[in-house]
Amino acid sequence: MTIFSKIISGEIPSYKIAENDHFIAFLDIMPLRKGHTLVIPKIEVDKLFDVPDEYLSGLLVFAKPVAKAIEKSFDCNRCGVSVVGIEVPHAHVHLIPLNSANDVNFLQPKLQLTDSEMKEIQELIVGNL
Amino acid sequence: MTIFSKIISGEIPSYKIAENDHFIAFLDIMPLRKGHTLVIPKIEVDKLFDVPDEYLSGLLVFAKPVAKAIEKSFDCNRCGVSVVGIEVPHAHVHLIPLNSANDVNFLQPKLQLTDSEMKEIQELIVGNL
Repeated sequence: MTIFSKIISGEIPSYKIAENDHFIAFLDIMPLRKGHTLVIPKIEVDKLFDVPDEYLSGLLVFAKPVAKAIEKSFDCNRCGVSVVGIEVPHAHVHLIPLNSANDVNFLQPKLQLTDSEMKEIQELIVGNL
Repeated sequence: MTIFSKIISGEIPSYKIAENDHFIAFLDIMPLRKGHTLVIPKIEVDKLFDVPDEYLSGLLVFAKPVAKAIEKSFDCNRCGVSVVGIEVPHAHVHLIPLNSANDVNFLQPKLQLTDSEMKEIQELIVGNL
């Protein structure tokens, strides 16, 4: 069982942004930028393109209002999307506010944010949903 | 009219991989890795999350067989996905075969491939579709 399945079940807490029957969106705890959010399907499938079409067809539609709330919440050109997926074997889509290609460069150091900073970001994005 | 709309209309040639009523996939002419492919909706909308749901819901389903053909064609862990979108104001999704996060780092130098190398890659991917 991946850490993401434990987040879905509630066994591990998360800074949740949105949820429906098929997907959940929550803050990445090792963010590249403030507002960096993960969207995952509620089934444990490693690779994005092995996720059943029933989920794939809803993923970007579910992510859309989350991305728009991120765009409203942070000074950015737009919300970028990235699926790398080597670290956790549960398909996950990164939503990252960006102003340049460097903002979605996973080789850079991650931000270290406190619990209260994370809660503040969560409230800001949820408030803009 | 963006360069991508000219590719859709056929005014500008491309190394086409797949096409349906809503989308077209073709090789990125400035690839990060061999097999780097772009998927675009056949409507000129700048930001991915401004693309109508009618298109958004089909995008990953259309990209799926293309991504799987890329995975078959190149030695890689999987096909990654990236949407940055600052350079051309027509929503486009990068599909890139990856083994590490560096393979989808847009700050690195692009590959310089000849026309015959691009055609070879095109034939390889299309043959694996």
